[in-house]
Amino acid sequence: MPSALIVGSIALDSVETPFGKVDNALGGAASYASCVASLFAPVRLIGVVGEDFPQEQLDALAERGVDTSHVERVEGGRSFRWAGRYVHDMSQAETLDTQLNVFADFRPEIPPEWRDTEIVFLANIHPALQRCVLEQCGGAQLTIADTMNFWIQGERDELLEVLRRVDVALLNDAEVRQLTGEPALIPAGRDALALGPRYVVIKKGVHGATLLSADSLFSVPSYPVAEVRDPTGAGDSFAGGIAGFLAATEDVREPNLRRALAVGAVMASFACEDFSLRGLWDVTKHDVRQRYDELRQIALFDPL
Amino acid sequence: MPSALIVGSIALDSVETPFGKVDNALGGAASYASCVASLFAPVRLIGVVGEDFPQEQLDALAERGVDTSHVERVEGGRSFRWAGRYVHDMSQAETLDTQLNVFADFRPEIPPEWRDTEIVFLANIHPALQRCVLEQCGGAQLTIADTMNFWIQGERDELLEVLRRVDVALLNDAEVRQLTGEPALIPAGRDALALGPRYVVIKKGVHGATLLSADSLFSVPSYPVAEVRDPTGAGDSFAGGIAGFLAATEDVREPNLRRALAVGAVMASFACEDFSLRGLWDVTKHDVRQRYDELRQIALFDPL
Repeated sequence: MPSALIVGSIALDSVETPFGKVDNALGGAASYASCVASLFAPVRLIGVVGEDFPQEQLDALAERGVDTSHVERVEGGRSFRWAGRYVHDMSQAETLDTQLNVFADFRPEIPPEWRDTEIVFLANIHPALQRCVLEQCGGAQLTIADTMNFWIQGERDELLEVLRRVDVALLNDAEVRQLTGEPALIPAGRDALALGPRYVVIKKGVHGATLLSADSLFSVPSYPVAEVRDPTGAGDSFAGGIAGFLAATEDVREPNLRRALAVGAVMASFACEDFSLRGLWDVTKHDVRQRYDELRQIALFDPL
Repeated sequence: MPSALIVGSIALDSVETPFGKVDNALGGAASYASCVASLFAPVRLIGVVGEDFPQEQLDALAERGVDTSHVERVEGGRSFRWAGRYVHDMSQAETLDTQLNVFADFRPEIPPEWRDTEIVFLANIHPALQRCVLEQCGGAQLTIADTMNFWIQGERDELLEVLRRVDVALLNDAEVRQLTGEPALIPAGRDALALGPRYVVIKKGVHGATLLSADSLFSVPSYPVAEVRDPTGAGDSFAGGIAGFLAATEDVREPNLRRALAVGAVMASFACEDFSLRGLWDVTKHDVRQRYDELRQIALFDPL
């Protein structure tokens, strides 16, 4: 089966929400994305951890079919740590502390035998590193890149290089507005498309996600979870669902991208229901199918 | 054919947006809603204007099948006037001036022969007046009520009485959170349902709308207009589309409510494309069908 290559952060998160807190729990964009993607397809993970990183966390990913053999462990180094808190409607994290540690010197090197991996997901890292990976992965069928406000503001030129090269750009609603200077959401998405990617995916949190291409537009609602306990990693789980599903289905045409976004929305819903990756480990394909079918019912209306 | 009864404000609006401005143009919730609803079904309009109100505006509505014979004209009175401006992403109006004038003493009286009108839409007016109309319209198949933050805060008990009696409550996302004190959108919608209405419709602007009932959930995206020139009246056009379509189709079951919301979303898109009601007058059923079909394509994704 085709695989998904995932490049990004592996972290220890301390998170507080109105529903509880965790300390030094497994986190990081690549952890969420690879845990999710591995439900659908073999995953190849590129990242870095410190000497302090619990091996059992990597082992748990490996047991799911995530190849962690190229996760670098820096002797004497400390893992990337993030601490944050969510209040009220939990739509935005307040960062309390960020310690890049070994992640500050992360230089993703893709082993030659992984360079033709079918689906590549570049989680949010410095756009110069994303570009470097894209250049190494010329054999991919589809490349997907996430980013964040920090790079849009501070590394705009590098990010524009990534957007010229990548197939799918993932942005949240604030980011696509910031990137393009266009306040209206869909026009902003169209402006982002003009920067190079074949597809732009706008992540809208509780409002779902929108997929734009030159000649199509698709909107999927979010799956209505009874209780969002910790939204950390929802966007990365969404991306991991897209990457894993596309690898498993071996079809990167637009109708299947729509299905992938819906799978991503479902995976994001599981991620939100508990802290760290706890909401994800035990999800089965049957669970996914059930929520996917519900999502189709939510979006359904008859012809006139 | 069954009719829609619409009760609410008829105003003269002065509006400024980044795309231009109008002075003393036709406005008011009931104007938008009745103009839109009359594309689908006969409309009975209840409202009040002053001596200064241009008769040709009422005549234009009457030509579309809006019965304006019970629009009260107060001799020597001045019409309700609103002035507002939208900036940046135009998601929220800044009110510059409100002159209630004759609207301050508006006491809607439903003529006996209109009291069994099939579909009733109560636009945003004082909830005590909404209740008064609901009590007069016991023969309606479906009643729909809009409201606003002002009443949620200041006339909560009266509003709760309305919610106990009405079939469909229309609220925007901020209002449903304010009403229920629940920050999460869908849970807030469920809490609002518990206050009495059979259906809650959450209006989410560019993010579309959501319909909740005890046993179903439906989300429709907004129609992607190329350029929002003036969002005034979008929510009222949405409601007018729902009311008119339900009257015309004589079916108030949930699947048809879904279709009505999609029609409403389409009508809101036309309203946004120009100032005052200019985007609405010339819309044909063919135009509606075309955007409706596009909206279905936007929401479409295949089974797994």
